Amino acid sequence: MSASRLPVVRDVAGLRAAVAAWRGGGQSLALVPTMGALHEGHLSLVRAAKARASRVVASLFVNPKQFAPHEDFERYPRDEASDAALLAGAGCDLLYAPGRAAMYPDGFATNVIVSNVSTPLEGEFRPHFFGGVATVVAKLLLQCLPDCALFGEKDYQQLLVIKRLARDLDVPVEIVGRPTVREADGLAMSSRNFYLTADERRIAAQLNVIMRESIAAIRAGSTIADTEQSGKQRLAAAGFAIVDYFAVRDADTLAETVDLSRPARLLAAAWLGKTRLIDNMAV
Amino acid sequence: MSASRLPVVRDVAGLRAAVAAWRGGGQSLALVPTMGALHEGHLSLVRAAKARASRVVASLFVNPKQFAPHEDFERYPRDEASDAALLAGAGCDLLYAPGRAAMYPDGFATNVIVSNVSTPLEGEFRPHFFGGVATVVAKLLLQCLPDCALFGEKDYQQLLVIKRLARDLDVPVEIVGRPTVREADGLAMSSRNFYLTADERRIAAQLNVIMRESIAAIRAGSTIADTEQSGKQRLAAAGFAIVDYFAVRDADTLAETVDLSRPARLLAAAWLGKTRLIDNMAV
Repeated sequence: MSASRLPVVRDVAGLRAAVAAWRGGGQSLALVPTMGALHEGHLSLVRAAKARASRVVASLFVNPKQFAPHEDFERYPRDEASDAALLAGAGCDLLYAPGRAAMYPDGFATNVIVSNVSTPLEGEFRPHFFGGVATVVAKLLLQCLPDCALFGEKDYQQLLVIKRLARDLDVPVEIVGRPTVREADGLAMSSRNFYLTADERRIAAQLNVIMRESIAAIRAGSTIADTEQSGKQRLAAAGFAIVDYFAVRDADTLAETVDLSRPARLLAAAWLGKTRLIDNMAV
Repeated sequence: MSASRLPVVRDVAGLRAAVAAWRGGGQSLALVPTMGALHEGHLSLVRAAKARASRVVASLFVNPKQFAPHEDFERYPRDEASDAALLAGAGCDLLYAPGRAAMYPDGFATNVIVSNVSTPLEGEFRPHFFGGVATVVAKLLLQCLPDCALFGEKDYQQLLVIKRLARDLDVPVEIVGRPTVREADGLAMSSRNFYLTADERRIAAQLNVIMRESIAAIRAGSTIADTEQSGKQRLAAAGFAIVDYFAVRDADTLAETVDLSRPARLLAAAWLGKTRLIDNMAV
């Protein structure tokens, strides 16, 4: 199939018809939910999906429910033709690109709320965010009913929230997390990197450098509290205007942790100008 | 199959194995969710389910999430053996009776919240109720993935909430409402009728009588406001200690209504001693 010929469906009926035809032929199915503005991180998910299932659907929906009014919903980058070409090249079989009215028709009134793991970190700084994510992901999973759905670890807390909702609501799907894909200088790939000026882009790489060095310091004996404080100071000195958090947490619950008796994760969010970057790494 | 031989499964894996075997054989499937304490209302749902699908699963789970701490979760009637015999006699093929740990394992953290239609009436007097209902019904639907699921109109607002959540979350199921089944004197059948003393049982029939007469009064020209007020007074005079509501509402949205230009519903909730009765009728 040529890159320009990726089939596109725009409503649930079209998606289900394609899925039913594949299911009738005994094929397995993987879903890669995206908000478009695709980069190598997304494409690595599509390739991993293709290794797990005979058919891969990518969804493209910039979900208004997960943006607060002051956030970047309107300026979020959108280029469906380019995204479709990239998806086809990575082995995607179908693009599901519903409009807003197809996802949230008049009278829509249901929200999926995940407690606990959604509360700290992103939940504190973007209180609307995980409700929007959980609701739209539940919908996408139930519209498609894939065997597995793949998400990047770059949005680590989001991955935990989605695993929790799929388990709790008994959605018959395997949620698969895949490693963050990085630029040559270590910056985690993100659609929001497109917003960065050249100067900001240079500074942005320091986020990953400081995280790696902080993890090395913890392994060498620094306390978690000292490392968190030092990391915030170093980010500020590097030019990050605001550091929302720079925190070592339990890798499963995101609860605060003072030792490393259980797997831990370093998670950070910081601002460069109008752009908010997040990243995380295993400690 | 004899009544005593109704197969029972107690976890999602067992349910899905049975469903997969039927699906593999091309059979259609209906689900009848219940909290047990079965009466003719439930059995009429099972028979209607059997007319729509080749296989019928009934679930039996007294859902702790839809009871407030002061409510009757502990004393809610439970007799699984009797329920199983009744279900088998009505044509049910499988009883799904999960334990609490199978439904809400440690770490459970997800809730399905339906706004708007869940807010007035029951939502006002039992503010925890519809969150619990929506969450458990979403789980049951996704555990079973039936072609259709049947609910009694006796819980009219609940039926609207369930229709809304199934539509909003794209659960691939048809939600079917079925008419309330009544005793000879018109009392809507309910598991909570078992709580009534002989005196209370005699008074209980007045709920339906007053509702029918109120609807007749509206059709004869009484205003909705006058009819609601008069209905509450008549219930109190008949011996209902507390009337939570006696209200004519839009039949689809449950919004207040002053005319009958759209379909309307009379809904009522009132107490006899420690027992709370609800009923509703088309105006």
